[in-house]
Amino acid sequence: MKLINNSYKKELQLVNRLIKSEIINETVIQELYDYIFKKNGKQLRPLLSLIASSPDKRKTSKRVQIAAIIELLHTATLVHDDVVDESPLRRGAKTINNFWTNSHGVLMGDFIYSKAFMLMVDLSNLKILNELSKATNDISKGELIQLDLVGKKEVTLDELLQISYFKTGRLFEASAKCGAILVNENDKKYISNVSSFAKNLGIAFQIKDDMLDYSQSSKHIGKPTLQDLREGKITYPLYFAMKAADTNDKRFLQSFLGVQTKYNTSIVLEKIEALGGNHKTEELLLNYIQKSKKLANKIENKQVREEMLNLSKFSYERTK
Amino acid sequence: MKLINNSYKKELQLVNRLIKSEIINETVIQELYDYIFKKNGKQLRPLLSLIASSPDKRKTSKRVQIAAIIELLHTATLVHDDVVDESPLRRGAKTINNFWTNSHGVLMGDFIYSKAFMLMVDLSNLKILNELSKATNDISKGELIQLDLVGKKEVTLDELLQISYFKTGRLFEASAKCGAILVNENDKKYISNVSSFAKNLGIAFQIKDDMLDYSQSSKHIGKPTLQDLREGKITYPLYFAMKAADTNDKRFLQSFLGVQTKYNTSIVLEKIEALGGNHKTEELLLNYIQKSKKLANKIENKQVREEMLNLSKFSYERTK
Repeated sequence: MKLINNSYKKELQLVNRLIKSEIINETVIQELYDYIFKKNGKQLRPLLSLIASSPDKRKTSKRVQIAAIIELLHTATLVHDDVVDESPLRRGAKTINNFWTNSHGVLMGDFIYSKAFMLMVDLSNLKILNELSKATNDISKGELIQLDLVGKKEVTLDELLQISYFKTGRLFEASAKCGAILVNENDKKYISNVSSFAKNLGIAFQIKDDMLDYSQSSKHIGKPTLQDLREGKITYPLYFAMKAADTNDKRFLQSFLGVQTKYNTSIVLEKIEALGGNHKTEELLLNYIQKSKKLANKIENKQVREEMLNLSKFSYERTK
Repeated sequence: MKLINNSYKKELQLVNRLIKSEIINETVIQELYDYIFKKNGKQLRPLLSLIASSPDKRKTSKRVQIAAIIELLHTATLVHDDVVDESPLRRGAKTINNFWTNSHGVLMGDFIYSKAFMLMVDLSNLKILNELSKATNDISKGELIQLDLVGKKEVTLDELLQISYFKTGRLFEASAKCGAILVNENDKKYISNVSSFAKNLGIAFQIKDDMLDYSQSSKHIGKPTLQDLREGKITYPLYFAMKAADTNDKRFLQSFLGVQTKYNTSIVLEKIEALGGNHKTEELLLNYIQKSKKLANKIENKQVREEMLNLSKFSYERTK
C-alpha cells in the first residue's frame, strides 16, 4: 500500500535536506553521517509530525525543522541501540559499530543527539522543548528497563507493553504532539487526540516489529531473523508461546534465549506457531490498531484524520 | 591548597542533593546512579558556574540547578568516554563499562544527558539553553576529532589545542557563561570576561591532566599511568618530546603508541623527560594559566575575581 502522498514526499525531502545541511560542516563527521543516512527508514515519526502540523502550512519551515529534530533523535537512539545490541546489520546495511567501532557509534550518537537539541532550542518554543526532552529521557529509561530484562527467563505482559511504550510509542506520541503544538497551541483537544492516537500507533508498530522478527519472511526487514531471541530478549510471540506452553516446551523455548550460534530456526518458529504465540501477538496488535483508529476518528480535521487512519492501516499491514 | 570556601561547599552539597533527587525514582537506574556518583570529582565546572552567578544570591535555587545540569552533562560525557576508551578505572574506582557492560555505559550516559536537558528546559531561559546545547555538541565534536586521531603517528599542536578546547575548555566556558547570564543577563562585559577566563582555564586544566598522565606520581589521580599512550593518543608531553627527537628516538616513542601490554614505563618517562617533553608542556600550561589570570583580572567584581584567580592557582598547582 502507498504510505505517503506526494506533498509529504516533498516535505520529507526538505526534512532530509535540512538534516544534511546541519551536519556537513565537519569532515570527520561527514563520512560517518553519509553512512548512517544513506539508507532512509520509513520515516514514520517525521511523517506523523508533519501530518499533525499540516493544518497550518504557513509554518512549513518550522514544521520541517520539528520533523528533522525528531528524525535526528530517532537516528541517535538507533545508533546507540546498535552498540548496545552489538547489531551487525540495520536496514540491510552494516551498522556503524560493525563498519567502524563501538566508539564511533557512541560518539556519533552523542553528536546527533546534541545537534537535535541545538535545533530544538532554535525553535524557541518551551512547550515543544519540554515534550521532546522528556520523551528523550523516557526512551533511555525504556532502553535501561529492557537491558535489565535481558537474560531473564520470564517477563510480564505489563513489562513488554511498558518497554514498547517507552522505546517506540513515546517518540511517536511526542512527534504528533509537537507538530500539533506548533500549529494549534491552544487547542487542547486536538493536541490530546493526535498524541493519544500516535502513542497507541507506536505501541502497535513495536508489536508488529516483534512479530516480523518471528516471521519466516523477516529477512525482508533487513535484520536477521530471531534477532531478539538471539540477544536474550523475550518479546510478544515468545511471551505468548511460553504462557501457553507446558513445562517441557517452556524449557525448550527458554533454551534458545541468548544463543548466538547457528541453529535451525524453523524448529523454534514452528513451536511458537503451534503454541499460538503469533496468533496471540496478532490479536494484541489488532487491539492497539483498533484503539489507534478509535482515537484517530476523534480528530475533527478531516484531512489529518484520514491521513492518521492511513498510518494505522499501513502499520497493521506492513510486511517489513 | 584549599580549593573552596565553606559557602561553596554548602552550595555544592545542594547541587549533589538536587542531582540525586532527580534520579532516585527509577530503581533500575538508582543502582547504576549510586555507582557513578559515589565518587565525586573535583566538581570544578559546577563551582565555576556557582562563582560566576554568585553576585546574585537571591537566585540560588536556579544557580544550584545550573550547576547540577553542568555536573550531569559532564558526568554523561565521562560515562560515554569510558566506553570509548574502554577504561577500567575512573577516580580510582571501576568504571560502569567495566563493572557492568558497555551497554549500561551507553544507556546510562544517554539517561543522564537527557535528564540534564529536562532540567535545562525547566529553567525556561533560551540563552542558557542555547549555550549549553551548543557546548554539548562541541564536546562530542571534540571527541570525534580525537577518535579520528587515535592510532596516528603524528599530530599538530593546533589539533591538540582544538581537542583540549572542545573536550574541556568548552564546558568550562559554558559553565561560567551560564552562571553569568543567569545573574547579569545584560552585562556583556562581565559575561565575556568570565567566559574567556573559563575557556582558558579549561584548556590549562586539560594540559595539566595530560602532564599528570606522564608523571611518576600519576597513580594519585586514580587512573593508570601512561593511559593516553596506551590508548594510542598523542598528548602534549609526547608531542613535544617527538618534536625534539631524532629519527631513532621518535621511532622508539612511536613504538609504544597503543601498546596495551605491560612494560617498564620508566624507559618511556625518562626518554620524554630527557627530550624536554615535560618541560615544554609545563611552559604551555603556564602560558594558559597566565592568560586565564589576565582575563580574571578584568573581572570588576572583586569577590568573583579573587575566586577565579584562586581556581587558576589551584589548576596550576594540583598534583592529582
